[in-house]
Amino acid sequence: MFKKILIANRGEIALRIIRTCREMGISSVAVYSTADAESLHVRFADEAVCIGPPPSTDSYLKISNIIAAAEITNADAIHPGYGFLSENARFSKICEEHGIKFIGASEEMINLMGDKASAKATMKKAGVPTVPGSDGILPSFSAAKKTAEEIGYPVMLKATAGGGGKGMRAVWKPEDLEDAWDSARQESKAAFGNDGMYMEKLIEEPRHIEIQIVGDSKGRACHLSERDCSIQRRHQKLTEETPSPFMTDELREKMGDAAVLASEYIKYEGAGTIEFLVDKHRNFYFMEMNTRIQVEHPITEQVIANFDLIREQIKVAAGVPIIGINYYPTQHSIECRINAEDPFNKFRPSPGTITIFHAPGGHGVRLDTHVYAGYTIPPNYDSMIAKLIVTAQTREEAISKMKRALDEFVIEGIKTTIPFHRQLMDDPDYVSGNYTTAFMDSFKMQTE
Amino acid sequence: MFKKILIANRGEIALRIIRTCREMGISSVAVYSTADAESLHVRFADEAVCIGPPPSTDSYLKISNIIAAAEITNADAIHPGYGFLSENARFSKICEEHGIKFIGASEEMINLMGDKASAKATMKKAGVPTVPGSDGILPSFSAAKKTAEEIGYPVMLKATAGGGGKGMRAVWKPEDLEDAWDSARQESKAAFGNDGMYMEKLIEEPRHIEIQIVGDSKGRACHLSERDCSIQRRHQKLTEETPSPFMTDELREKMGDAAVLASEYIKYEGAGTIEFLVDKHRNFYFMEMNTRIQVEHPITEQVIANFDLIREQIKVAAGVPIIGINYYPTQHSIECRINAEDPFNKFRPSPGTITIFHAPGGHGVRLDTHVYAGYTIPPNYDSMIAKLIVTAQTREEAISKMKRALDEFVIEGIKTTIPFHRQLMDDPDYVSGNYTTAFMDSFKMQTE
Repeated sequence: MFKKILIANRGEIALRIIRTCREMGISSVAVYSTADAESLHVRFADEAVCIGPPPSTDSYLKISNIIAAAEITNADAIHPGYGFLSENARFSKICEEHGIKFIGASEEMINLMGDKASAKATMKKAGVPTVPGSDGILPSFSAAKKTAEEIGYPVMLKATAGGGGKGMRAVWKPEDLEDAWDSARQESKAAFGNDGMYMEKLIEEPRHIEIQIVGDSKGRACHLSERDCSIQRRHQKLTEETPSPFMTDELREKMGDAAVLASEYIKYEGAGTIEFLVDKHRNFYFMEMNTRIQVEHPITEQVIANFDLIREQIKVAAGVPIIGINYYPTQHSIECRINAEDPFNKFRPSPGTITIFHAPGGHGVRLDTHVYAGYTIPPNYDSMIAKLIVTAQTREEAISKMKRALDEFVIEGIKTTIPFHRQLMDDPDYVSGNYTTAFMDSFKMQTE
Repeated sequence: MFKKILIANRGEIALRIIRTCREMGISSVAVYSTADAESLHVRFADEAVCIGPPPSTDSYLKISNIIAAAEITNADAIHPGYGFLSENARFSKICEEHGIKFIGASEEMINLMGDKASAKATMKKAGVPTVPGSDGILPSFSAAKKTAEEIGYPVMLKATAGGGGKGMRAVWKPEDLEDAWDSARQESKAAFGNDGMYMEKLIEEPRHIEIQIVGDSKGRACHLSERDCSIQRRHQKLTEETPSPFMTDELREKMGDAAVLASEYIKYEGAGTIEFLVDKHRNFYFMEMNTRIQVEHPITEQVIANFDLIREQIKVAAGVPIIGINYYPTQHSIECRINAEDPFNKFRPSPGTITIFHAPGGHGVRLDTHVYAGYTIPPNYDSMIAKLIVTAQTREEAISKMKRALDEFVIEGIKTTIPFHRQLMDDPDYVSGNYTTAFMDSFKMQTE
């Protein structure tokens, strides 16, 4: 087992990892930027090394400084957390070259799964369902017609140069294809000076449902069931839950099998997540793989008997084989990401000093945070300041518990997204479990 | 289901009950003394009624004031928590007479189990093992000899007028009985002017292990396995854990069966605890029954899939039948009672104002507390200010997690028992699980 792990990250995830290190009897080294000197991850680590000023390119992303910190402190492994260097193939390789174990994916694996096109091609080869579509640019209208017939309507026409919805058309019936083809090309030409088009199957009422997996050095993998992360604003997840209210036992078996297949096909080692889009017919399609721990991992831990995913990552990295059974949720867990943002003002960031901080507690409540009363949130980083996680025997009880915990949570001095989550937990579509990734497009905050 | 529950208690247990009421959609009424106006249980309840000044006899124990508060607020049930009026037969009856459901035991049940002699006699009749002994005072030495032979050595001779160990003799062999009989009688005569003696079987290396039960209005009961509460100082529990490190599957079956038998024999309704002494040979003896929720109930909740015992109490009181299966621990949980006491100075109470309060958090950590930064602990009540509960997959991991959580816990402005628990978690006998109720007699705090 490792003697000392350097955590190449900040904030709640750095603290999360330090806690497990301490529980495992492994020394921890925090690194921090000059803006983060007062963060709890610095206070609670056994050692701490300042690696430069903000922005991140001068500190948390500066590989040479992090490697130097590891060498100075004699750390034998580095845990990258999420974000920053966690999916940086070069960093993984440099750690390897310095004889420091990178607790994450290998250079090769990150390269393979980091590029969306190559990841999709690999998964297709493995037999994992991917979103059907054209092989790149469609050379002609007749090719478009043929592809649409092959993959089945509805389809999406997309401009290769596209963005912001420009040059994009949903086509529901064959007789509408020609008009859509012409208008999308014209629009794309006008907007980008390029009328190249490709086609994908339109995913109706998509949900973002991901499967947590763990693979070991023997190439064996298991899954830990799903997380529903469909509640997103501009592709940022806001709240997650497990089980997914849309899940069936049959679908979980199928998606779990696909995730294990994907992981074993590429001989993936460590904790990872296979993200799928699931349509209203419960067809699922590989979207991407995250070769790292995810923000929302605690809800999985909560529902499968207090499994510690960070401990598992560390053990797997040290060569311990996994047990090799799949895990299924026995309870219901919800996570709300508490951000220093003003939900009444377009979620604008609200850095500043926390004057009062009172954490909710009691039965079924977990809080992961690096902040405290008197802490000043620097403006340089992600605005997430806490993850509030509740666990109960049913979804209904979990929602009630989350409302109760949100009501107890007092953070003064800054604006937070607590009021947003409070309203979300009362939203009829959320409560019914009937939501898709489009949920936030129509969600409106009630006035304060 | 009830519409509104008045909580006839204070502090953490009042808050605990209010939280579950809120999660169940039941309105809550807090009562409070003038010394407790700033407690969180007052802030988080839907309504709050001041019921008088300290001491408790003028407020929390003043039945007329509590009934008046229930009538004014139109509460249809009263939850008494633990302590105070929770095992007061008269209060239970008065609630009944006022048409207010008492969420606890009936007058009859409290009377039956509240008196130790009648409880023991009842349990003996039910077939639950009790500590064997003489029927009251031994008339002669030959009667003592006969009783000792019947119940088996070792035995304890005890002066009926005794106290503080005076007139008490442990006798291990028949040949030592006569000397012990003579000297104990002389000592008792000298100390109390009374040489009446009775005899009980000596419980060797006793452990305090209790079984949580829930009975319903149909007279059916189930058990929720054990809690080991052997770590006590002057009969005050300091820390509890489940499973007991001394437990075997076979013993758990036997003790669980005995507890269910006890409960069903008296047709017990509600949550209750059967406390047993267990000797080094794993014989167990009924000690007493607590007809209420206990301080240490959260560790049971933690290890049996997030069961909510307060919810269960409320449901049973409302007439909902129990499922009727027994529950077994799937994880390990430890609770440390954090008291406002100075462990370096004979655990002397340390009331005062909390200046800094930082709660531990993260994976497997639960905190039940009614205090916060700026809160002033009144000198009038029990010194317990928080219950820190950790849960992990193994006992070893739970101990590591408790150490980590204790290290993170910051309370400034008063003295607390956090340093005691920190040292306890490093004690070789505690860590090995090899401890009895005598543990604290030999435990010495290391200097600060």
